[in-house]
Amino acid sequence: MSGHVFRGVLVPVLTPFRPDLSPDVDAFVTHCRWLLNRGAHGLAVFGTTSEANSIGLEERMALLEHLIDSGISPSVLMPGTGTSALTDTVRLTAHAVEHGCAGVLVLPPFYYKAIDDDGLFASYSEIIQRVGSDSLQVYLYHIPPISQVHLSLKLIGRLLSAYENTIVGLKDSSGDWSNTETVLREYPTLATFCGSEVFLLETLRKGGAGSITATANVNVAEIRKTFERWQEGNANKLQKEINSVRKVFEKYPLIPSLKAITAEFYNSSDWCRVRPPLRALSVTDTEGLIKSLTNLGFKM
Amino acid sequence: MSGHVFRGVLVPVLTPFRPDLSPDVDAFVTHCRWLLNRGAHGLAVFGTTSEANSIGLEERMALLEHLIDSGISPSVLMPGTGTSALTDTVRLTAHAVEHGCAGVLVLPPFYYKAIDDDGLFASYSEIIQRVGSDSLQVYLYHIPPISQVHLSLKLIGRLLSAYENTIVGLKDSSGDWSNTETVLREYPTLATFCGSEVFLLETLRKGGAGSITATANVNVAEIRKTFERWQEGNANKLQKEINSVRKVFEKYPLIPSLKAITAEFYNSSDWCRVRPPLRALSVTDTEGLIKSLTNLGFKM
Repeated sequence: MSGHVFRGVLVPVLTPFRPDLSPDVDAFVTHCRWLLNRGAHGLAVFGTTSEANSIGLEERMALLEHLIDSGISPSVLMPGTGTSALTDTVRLTAHAVEHGCAGVLVLPPFYYKAIDDDGLFASYSEIIQRVGSDSLQVYLYHIPPISQVHLSLKLIGRLLSAYENTIVGLKDSSGDWSNTETVLREYPTLATFCGSEVFLLETLRKGGAGSITATANVNVAEIRKTFERWQEGNANKLQKEINSVRKVFEKYPLIPSLKAITAEFYNSSDWCRVRPPLRALSVTDTEGLIKSLTNLGFKM
Repeated sequence: MSGHVFRGVLVPVLTPFRPDLSPDVDAFVTHCRWLLNRGAHGLAVFGTTSEANSIGLEERMALLEHLIDSGISPSVLMPGTGTSALTDTVRLTAHAVEHGCAGVLVLPPFYYKAIDDDGLFASYSEIIQRVGSDSLQVYLYHIPPISQVHLSLKLIGRLLSAYENTIVGLKDSSGDWSNTETVLREYPTLATFCGSEVFLLETLRKGGAGSITATANVNVAEIRKTFERWQEGNANKLQKEINSVRKVFEKYPLIPSLKAITAEFYNSSDWCRVRPPLRALSVTDTEGLIKSLTNLGFKM
């Protein structure tokens, strides 16, 4: 691993699928390159937005290897490696470390519910100890609306105390700014990323690291610009502009709508395809989405 | 596959772990044999109670193979094969079919939330079509308190219409008797199992197939007896007795408490071990549980 801690705008990269629903490796690499060229600081491949939890273990590992073989530097990669099963998470995490990824974004185990801090502490401990590498850099992934498992402030503190050289960051996709704010205040050494760019300026002003956000798949340049100019006079105006794009997408199912717009970028309807249980955006919704974005002056 | 549809009492078999948290294959086979000898009609290995969603793909397949190699007939096996990822579910399901398992219990994909019927229909369709075997017999697994994904009545109907020879049963672990009752009334040809033995008599009286229940790990003989005598005069009394045992366990975290009592049966504290994110039952709770069970005259 390269040893650096991420800062800036990272993209949970959408995963394109072929008609047989296998990952379209070439389209994926093309999109990754495009995102980096447009300003992404890093690629959080295999995130929620990537439909990673609908993609098999072997497929995920093959896709990561292909990406690196295609010339994408592992120093910009923060793959998601958390699954519901301890040993599968260890396998994916060790694989990412072996391939030199700069970090991993690790969901808590998400099948069992009403899990307490002791159980989650034991989960992350086992993963870290089993991978057993000084190169491992873990970013905790807090996304209770989907995982339905909550990473409490106390748990974060316990993990930081026990693994200060390994746990370097956190992505807060709770959608609850007060939670992000508290994490930033309580754990200032942690590289904290907001899970939506609507909190980008607030995150940076409180000492946060940036944003890992789904919408960066289609709006990375503008989000990067807002990140770069966060201390300048027009920062609030830039924030408002990226918010207005985000808000349009939030009216629709997020992943299918991001894929629909990515299909417009690449002029390839193949990009609209999702894996079950998600469903592609309907024609009516796609038309409504495109109309709303066009009204904003958004370029596709 | 043997072609028979299950009926009776099935056990979602607890999975014992060694100190390094790997599955203890020998203890597992011993427990499976004991359950069959005590009256289990079938073994729903790799269920929720089995901590299957904390166990890796390769481990699950190796364990199933070992079980069959040890002489447990695949005709009594209904492994759980549903994961969050389409291709992993297909892999586990195809593996179970190839090894002759009489049925598979299939969770819906459980990572993404707010999934509609179309998405779930597409999920099950893809699995069935990809496995593509006349020997595949699917039991739908409805457990919204944990999966947080709901299998609606309408979805069940659509699946039955589309795959009448493949979808043969359902386990209802909603804990909501009115839901089970409606499924029994609307889909009388489906082999419907209640997910808790407290509904056993009611299920059978409404034409259901039986129960697939966690507590059968420690009380299978009595539950089997209740099943056998469901039309006899003392059925209600037997139902009341098994309920009283179940109710004791429900005061504690269910899986750890079942493991604690199984440890008593085998006189081996190794059985207490769980995988994170679950935690073993505390000493205090174990003492309280044993005391309550002893007061009921429950034999350990």
